[in-house]
Amino acid sequence: MSSFRYLVPLTTILLICCSKQHSAILYASTFSLFGYIAANWMIPRVGNAFIKIGLFGKDMSKPGRPVIPESVGAISAGIYILVMLLCIPFMFYKYMVTATSGGGYRDISVVEAGEQPTSFFPHDKLSEYLSSILCLESTILLGVADDLFDLRWRHKFFLPSIGAIPLLIVYYVDFGATHVLVPGFLQNWVQIPLIDLGAFYYVYMGAMTIFCPNAINILAGVNGLEVGQSIVLSLLALINDGIYMTLGHPNTWENHRFSAMLILPFLWVSMALYNWNRWPAKVFVGDTYCYFAGMVFAVVGILGHFSKTMLLLFLPQIVNFLYSVPQLFHIVPCPRHRLPRFNEKDGLLYPSRANLQETPAKGFFIPILKLLNFFKLIDLEYDDKGQLVSCTNMTLINLTLVWFGPRREDKLCRLILRLQFGVGILALIARHALGKVLFGHDNLWTID
Amino acid sequence: MSSFRYLVPLTTILLICCSKQHSAILYASTFSLFGYIAANWMIPRVGNAFIKIGLFGKDMSKPGRPVIPESVGAISAGIYILVMLLCIPFMFYKYMVTATSGGGYRDISVVEAGEQPTSFFPHDKLSEYLSSILCLESTILLGVADDLFDLRWRHKFFLPSIGAIPLLIVYYVDFGATHVLVPGFLQNWVQIPLIDLGAFYYVYMGAMTIFCPNAINILAGVNGLEVGQSIVLSLLALINDGIYMTLGHPNTWENHRFSAMLILPFLWVSMALYNWNRWPAKVFVGDTYCYFAGMVFAVVGILGHFSKTMLLLFLPQIVNFLYSVPQLFHIVPCPRHRLPRFNEKDGLLYPSRANLQETPAKGFFIPILKLLNFFKLIDLEYDDKGQLVSCTNMTLINLTLVWFGPRREDKLCRLILRLQFGVGILALIARHALGKVLFGHDNLWTID
Repeated sequence: MSSFRYLVPLTTILLICCSKQHSAILYASTFSLFGYIAANWMIPRVGNAFIKIGLFGKDMSKPGRPVIPESVGAISAGIYILVMLLCIPFMFYKYMVTATSGGGYRDISVVEAGEQPTSFFPHDKLSEYLSSILCLESTILLGVADDLFDLRWRHKFFLPSIGAIPLLIVYYVDFGATHVLVPGFLQNWVQIPLIDLGAFYYVYMGAMTIFCPNAINILAGVNGLEVGQSIVLSLLALINDGIYMTLGHPNTWENHRFSAMLILPFLWVSMALYNWNRWPAKVFVGDTYCYFAGMVFAVVGILGHFSKTMLLLFLPQIVNFLYSVPQLFHIVPCPRHRLPRFNEKDGLLYPSRANLQETPAKGFFIPILKLLNFFKLIDLEYDDKGQLVSCTNMTLINLTLVWFGPRREDKLCRLILRLQFGVGILALIARHALGKVLFGHDNLWTID
Repeated sequence: MSSFRYLVPLTTILLICCSKQHSAILYASTFSLFGYIAANWMIPRVGNAFIKIGLFGKDMSKPGRPVIPESVGAISAGIYILVMLLCIPFMFYKYMVTATSGGGYRDISVVEAGEQPTSFFPHDKLSEYLSSILCLESTILLGVADDLFDLRWRHKFFLPSIGAIPLLIVYYVDFGATHVLVPGFLQNWVQIPLIDLGAFYYVYMGAMTIFCPNAINILAGVNGLEVGQSIVLSLLALINDGIYMTLGHPNTWENHRFSAMLILPFLWVSMALYNWNRWPAKVFVGDTYCYFAGMVFAVVGILGHFSKTMLLLFLPQIVNFLYSVPQLFHIVPCPRHRLPRFNEKDGLLYPSRANLQETPAKGFFIPILKLLNFFKLIDLEYDDKGQLVSCTNMTLINLTLVWFGPRREDKLCRLILRLQFGVGILALIARHALGKVLFGHDNLWTID
């Protein structure tokens, strides 16, 4: 989509301007650019190697179903990791220099028995950074295994949360905040402003590292959508970071600088991938990229301390998941593929449908289907006798087609991305406006 | 080899007894055992999945050259990472509890403007631990890419050192020691007891992260040798750790406990792999495992502060590399495979030979070949006219066969491993004895 071509550099430049301390964001932006160039150069060149080892797929929504390389998003993910590793010396150079008295002599205090070791270097920051990269690398390894072996759900479901252990440890040690604010109107009832969720907060964060990667993986099936939605999510998160770094309390700057540092390189390597994955796709992204992308947002949300805002940005993905539940749990029959149906004659995509005659939906759910149909949240088909024949598959992609009518793949993708961007902006506005209403203040301006 | 069956548990138990502070080593041992069980259960079960996606190889030294799964060492590597991640909460639990005043309240000091942040948690230790796992995961990713795509040398040569960036940063910040001791007899000449290598020391450590992984990768070609040599290296390193933890200065305990924590799980997942890779091999280990194994030792050597001792343990691998140089640089012709030649009739392995008639060795090198032949370091073959016909390929494996005569694959592997173990023990003795002679003291007893 050509609008990304302007939005991505624009956001990067704005963010550099917003950041009070330029160096970190500037380094991240510079390295992001290298990452973009490297990924953009490499992706079209590895296709044959991927096809050769069996990593390819058929593009179902094109005439003749051409075979194109699959899992190429792993290249973007790998380059991201390289960029982040190369960034470390620059990110921490400042500290490495100021922590010495010069002449190569390092003033690290001597640790004596019983004393706590101290040093001038921000080890906590380094731990955060390292645990983030570590978590992302673990996710990539899991994704590669999934791309290669098509792991079963029960084998891979909990694995991302093991990769997140270093992250949660760092969170525990550095912040340890496990309380949530109680909205003002409820405070009269419960008589406390804060509820400490304790260990449940860690379960919630662990769940987030499972949800985010899978959420991106299931809103897929149209050329460019996996990468496109990740780019939109990145832009939204960066806008939020920019707002905090301009209007926010100085206490919040550090977290949002950290978030921007992690997201900027991701945005740019994704942009490179988008160039080749957008309609008509030359490559497929694969599970590796989807998991990796989701985990970037989970990591940033957790260590950047705005996991709830981040989940708000995932609203379309959450809605897509909830909307899919009846089919995922086989209350409504679920065909193997729920991609939109490609019509070779007019080249347009139509909503795909689940056959309700072969395997009817569970009885109790039929009224709900009819209700959804009434609100135009699904399209039901009846035969002459008034019997249910089929319903559209329950994914956001099909729903968009139900609402806006059949369209070409690229236009559908663009439409969904625009909707996602619009919803995201509204969510951000609502979050800061409602925050003020519900809690008496918004942490954009004050922090308790 | 059955002797591993006793040596590995014995070393583990001895190490637990040696460690002054039991908890860390005990946790590592317990998790190692889980790792062993998981790997030993999984490895025979994934074979078909590996073969299905094209990861298989022919065992050249068996009648009929059976096809067996390749790259299965990646399972051991993956389980190692899982074990290390699961270990983190236990390793740092002590600090997480003592750093609070109880009741879930965390006494982290408030950072005020201009003040250096301090906290009771050993962030430097966590950084070390995280950077080690990160470096190993990067190596695994590189190994997987190599196993899948057969990367070219020029593409993969420098990549391990990028994975080692976090390691070197942590080294720089935590230790920053870049000087080497000058031996006593040289001190009269140079008039200084220490030479500061500065940046070169980092180049040297970067080179180590390139050398170690490749060193294990090139001493290969006999069932069980890649894993076997890694197990022997682990045992030697653990013996060294045990010596330090019993006899050494208390300052050195921490480093060697760290080393043992990293090596123990590695030793056990390798042991599981060895069960299936030893003669007659059911699986091949692949590049992933070799790189990963080498990197474990590089990481431990660097962060455990005994990179030079570690290199001493790599003596057989170094000799193998130096001995191979004439063929690697095509001074002597190098056939595509330099594996020993399998004789189907008697089932024994014979030294394989490079044909010197088709492509003769470089002229200046022929006297050297003859010299090597004189010292029984190679076997030359002449025709009736006294012309050179062939020489044995220049690898330690072939040299062992030249020295000890043809033998069956398992006996050859066992012999090489025994030689390696013997050389390693001698190297350790020499290191501590010579250390005293050369430097006037050995850091086993005193530290400056």
